[in-house]
Amino acid sequence: MTAPETHKRMANAIRALAMDSVEKAKSGHPGMPMGMADVATVLFTRFLKYDVNQPHWPDRDRFILSAGHGSMLLYSVLHLLGSKELPISELQNFRQLHSKTPGHPENFVTPGVETTTGPLGQGLAMSVGFALAERMLNAEYGDGLVDHYTYVIAGDGCLMEGVSHEAIDLAGHLKLNKLIVLFDDNGITIDGHTDLSTSVDQVARFKASGWNAERVDGLDPEAVAAAIERARNSDRPSMIACKTIIGYGAPTKADSHASHGSALGDKEIAGAREALGWPYAPFEIPDDVYADWHGAAAKLAAPRTEWEARLAATDAAVRSEFERRMKGELPAGLDAAIDAYKKTLSETKPKVATRKSSEMALDMLATVVPELAGGSADLTGSNLTRAKSQQPLTPDDYSGRYIHYGIREFGMSAAMNGIALHGGFIPYGGTFLVFTDYARPAMRLSALMHERVIYVMTHDSIGLGEDGPTHQPVEHLAALRAIPNMLVFRPADAVEAAEVWQIAIESPKNPSVLALSRQNLPTLRTEHVSENKSAKGAYLLAGPAEADVTLFATGSEVEIAVNAKAKIEEAGHTARVVSVPSFELFEAQDDAYKAATIGNSKVRVGIEAAIRLGWDRVIGNDGIFIGMNGFGASAPADKLYEYFGITAQHAADAALARLKSNA
Amino acid sequence: MTAPETHKRMANAIRALAMDSVEKAKSGHPGMPMGMADVATVLFTRFLKYDVNQPHWPDRDRFILSAGHGSMLLYSVLHLLGSKELPISELQNFRQLHSKTPGHPENFVTPGVETTTGPLGQGLAMSVGFALAERMLNAEYGDGLVDHYTYVIAGDGCLMEGVSHEAIDLAGHLKLNKLIVLFDDNGITIDGHTDLSTSVDQVARFKASGWNAERVDGLDPEAVAAAIERARNSDRPSMIACKTIIGYGAPTKADSHASHGSALGDKEIAGAREALGWPYAPFEIPDDVYADWHGAAAKLAAPRTEWEARLAATDAAVRSEFERRMKGELPAGLDAAIDAYKKTLSETKPKVATRKSSEMALDMLATVVPELAGGSADLTGSNLTRAKSQQPLTPDDYSGRYIHYGIREFGMSAAMNGIALHGGFIPYGGTFLVFTDYARPAMRLSALMHERVIYVMTHDSIGLGEDGPTHQPVEHLAALRAIPNMLVFRPADAVEAAEVWQIAIESPKNPSVLALSRQNLPTLRTEHVSENKSAKGAYLLAGPAEADVTLFATGSEVEIAVNAKAKIEEAGHTARVVSVPSFELFEAQDDAYKAATIGNSKVRVGIEAAIRLGWDRVIGNDGIFIGMNGFGASAPADKLYEYFGITAQHAADAALARLKSNA
Repeated sequence: MTAPETHKRMANAIRALAMDSVEKAKSGHPGMPMGMADVATVLFTRFLKYDVNQPHWPDRDRFILSAGHGSMLLYSVLHLLGSKELPISELQNFRQLHSKTPGHPENFVTPGVETTTGPLGQGLAMSVGFALAERMLNAEYGDGLVDHYTYVIAGDGCLMEGVSHEAIDLAGHLKLNKLIVLFDDNGITIDGHTDLSTSVDQVARFKASGWNAERVDGLDPEAVAAAIERARNSDRPSMIACKTIIGYGAPTKADSHASHGSALGDKEIAGAREALGWPYAPFEIPDDVYADWHGAAAKLAAPRTEWEARLAATDAAVRSEFERRMKGELPAGLDAAIDAYKKTLSETKPKVATRKSSEMALDMLATVVPELAGGSADLTGSNLTRAKSQQPLTPDDYSGRYIHYGIREFGMSAAMNGIALHGGFIPYGGTFLVFTDYARPAMRLSALMHERVIYVMTHDSIGLGEDGPTHQPVEHLAALRAIPNMLVFRPADAVEAAEVWQIAIESPKNPSVLALSRQNLPTLRTEHVSENKSAKGAYLLAGPAEADVTLFATGSEVEIAVNAKAKIEEAGHTARVVSVPSFELFEAQDDAYKAATIGNSKVRVGIEAAIRLGWDRVIGNDGIFIGMNGFGASAPADKLYEYFGITAQHAADAALARLKSNA
Repeated sequence: MTAPETHKRMANAIRALAMDSVEKAKSGHPGMPMGMADVATVLFTRFLKYDVNQPHWPDRDRFILSAGHGSMLLYSVLHLLGSKELPISELQNFRQLHSKTPGHPENFVTPGVETTTGPLGQGLAMSVGFALAERMLNAEYGDGLVDHYTYVIAGDGCLMEGVSHEAIDLAGHLKLNKLIVLFDDNGITIDGHTDLSTSVDQVARFKASGWNAERVDGLDPEAVAAAIERARNSDRPSMIACKTIIGYGAPTKADSHASHGSALGDKEIAGAREALGWPYAPFEIPDDVYADWHGAAAKLAAPRTEWEARLAATDAAVRSEFERRMKGELPAGLDAAIDAYKKTLSETKPKVATRKSSEMALDMLATVVPELAGGSADLTGSNLTRAKSQQPLTPDDYSGRYIHYGIREFGMSAAMNGIALHGGFIPYGGTFLVFTDYARPAMRLSALMHERVIYVMTHDSIGLGEDGPTHQPVEHLAALRAIPNMLVFRPADAVEAAEVWQIAIESPKNPSVLALSRQNLPTLRTEHVSENKSAKGAYLLAGPAEADVTLFATGSEVEIAVNAKAKIEEAGHTARVVSVPSFELFEAQDDAYKAATIGNSKVRVGIEAAIRLGWDRVIGNDGIFIGMNGFGASAPADKLYEYFGITAQHAADAALARLKSNA
């Protein structure tokens, strides 16, 4: 058989498996795998440095299917390469409960899938983080241990989504030349031809952002291979627009949105089999095709043993640190350092904003945890996210550990997902809490994938003052607490800020949001304890175990609760204050702890400069809530707290009035 | 005085007012107004068709300050043009509670401000909606009544945000040639020089998306004027990169991020006054400068009287329809049409998905409410958002009322805000509910601005099935209910779908989210009533006023509640079902109605295929919740409901067990 014939059969195997799996599930997206089968075959048999049964090998090339609906492309390739995790039975179980072949690729379900995709644009945006992490780690460990490519397949949808701009601009600026994007340029979206809604010249667009970009015939394997070869030797990131035909081979549905998102049907599949010259039964792959794929797989995997030899020859201390970081384990000494730091805080009692407390904690942490990789969406001086020891990362020096992400909250967050997934780093990044709205699609993926990404979100309430309601979060704490697996922290002082940083770093399977104040707050935890009190989510901060009134508060409002307690006591009643740095962690405690912490007070008051949603869980339906009923306003912070009635006096008055009416 | 001298004094008046207002507030952003003062002076004295004291005149040019932090630029200009709403005292009250000069421009506070900006990129993205609405209305009413430009000032931040790509691509595709963007190309962001984080060639980038684009010296008024003149005569949207110096005039802080976001200080301001040749006291504007600005204002306003004459000469029926639509009033006959339609539904009892019910309602509504302007983010066949009577809008024909927004949820939503703000249309648009995460920043602005924008969000739960957790909303209902002013609807059947469409259209001051099922649902409201029962947010759907168990449910889970009721009754207990199409509207009812609707059942059960957050408000802390605890999975919908225990059997069993343990 000639080489072109061999290639064609290997590519047609992908097409057939995609058609058959979607048909069996009566659900899925056959069009993209059929169109991109040639490109994928070239990439996965000639270029990708990859061992399909060692999917976590650190120096493998990364492949990201940004057009995640084409999941059958990836599952087919993994199967054909010989993945033990994906026998043909898994492909026959496509999109069924508990299969390893879910509708969109899920890295936490399927070994060999690098990241979870489907929400368009985000695979591309995460790939910037993957490629950046590779260069950052390379700067520390050299070519011998870290030197690989990041390949992406992206579709029209990915490139229409706004986050693609943030990703492309950032990657071009940072000259991430080992990032190679294969654009499935098929001219079709769900609604029809792309000319319904877009006219952009993608090649010119990428060039404007500092990329190499060219267009090739995506059905011509040699043209694709030559373009990939050029891209691998480029000094910039590369985009190869591969002109393809969606649903290639389908007699009536090719080149039409009809092949995009549903099973083709028996008759169309029979026609496609004939057109492709593929006479085999559903899910039948001839031995020669398996043999060709397995042969390619062996060749692709060869560099792994060479790499392992290099690792074995590496200085033991370097090697052990490299392995620790790639496993996501933490350095020794972290807890002791935090304990000592907390002790100092309880003694010195700083009165600073929690964004400043966070910076102080970071200054310490960055020296103990070298894998911390920080950044901000262009608010460094406001978020206070740069530790003293961190130098900026630049296109000419990837050893910097502080990343100027630019005004790209979504792109930053997606890049952080990519960095976390790549391994070797714990990424954190800052913006204003209100702009979690921009970052939210990526934050959701952090949570779904159980990735350790730390969102440092400052200016966390009307306390930011004059910038006004566009910049004042009121619903964001509730909206973030709604995301499963997300830990949302609102520390009350410098000690809690240190504690929540500790929890965030020591939670390898959760992303965290640190909601931090702009305004100064006193140290309330003035008696040092080694225990991380914030880890229980809520705890009795002040007052007796039982009292007439319990005041629950978070963050900057805990000070108000403490002052309200004093006023209630002046009026002859007893009161206690419970600080609630994390609703999620409190919910996770046992019933006895929860009951003791909530207590038996006749009156429960919740204080948070945000909306009530979620608070009924703590204070009950009849609890008094001191917070916001709607959007904020532009004015100095103290004026706003007064205007919206979030004051100790108001809280105390409301509690006392309730005590009186109950009496 | 020579013309250049006059211009210079007019521009310096903006600079001085910006410096002085920020200094008095000790808060704000002087740098941008100082850099863009020349551009603004050219635009607002030579081009803008505008009557500063008739800010709602329909055919005015629209001006959008996408770089909203430069609000003092806009307030200064409005003051200098002679706005009665913005006397000098308001500028002296910049950023204070209840002033008309909030930190960022807020259209609901300040007459003359077209839209609320500050969250970067969104002004630009809304401008696409403004410019599109202008062309759409022009297609109906002709050049005599509708023929104006949309001007935008955008900064580096706007152009780094991803939504700028969505906006630029859409505007270029639609050939919105009356859209003119003035880019404040000052090379500075908050963190420092733009070369910290971006390398994009903006002129090349806009050209790649089908725009005219050029670069001019933004401090040279004649160069700016010539570029605007060219842009006005172009057949495409235009971007003019105006090379400026941030903080122009400030002796040490110009051309530095030091002038971006804080008061300059007395000494720097004194130096700037000297450098600019502006010897006047703070807030003092010499008479000749006022006279020049007022003279320009009179010239700019002249077209208004000519337009009014044309309107007066217009056919009375056309005129009255035009005026009705620009006022946002609804056509007569809407309620009657909905009533008749609901009656048919109760008789025919369709068993269809609520996305289909929504389409059926739309088919009817689009013929009665011609101002409905629909669209989808490339999911037309899934969202079912195109009414039979609607033709697609194309670059060659703006009379179509169905917009292919492309894969741009955020850009679509921002454009809808622009369309709503422009007036003449009620915009609605579709995507999957899970992708409200992408649209969220614009949805928040819809709510903050009290704009009537209708979000048609289908595939509203795990009921979407095989696409899996990336596509299955679980936290989105809660997260959307968190947004103040947002009405979130989850109709249970075709009748409720019609009712929530009616509420959405008849709520001129609220955006609405319609969360709609992919899966088929029976008609539960089989007895016709004219009353819009959904308008109370929750109501007794089935069963007696009091019962052992009350089952509360929304959307697709109401059917499950009805079936659970039957099972509870079979076991010898009484049960009632309350449908809760809108939490917000229910919360707004009086206490008596709420108490009667919630009832006195010993056991309350909430059923929603989503997380519990917010439900304690309805079912209490001890209520039973049948829903989701985390993310979904990829499988057929019925399998998922079974797997996650969201079934009538499970709900009934849980209620009966509770009754037993309570007994």
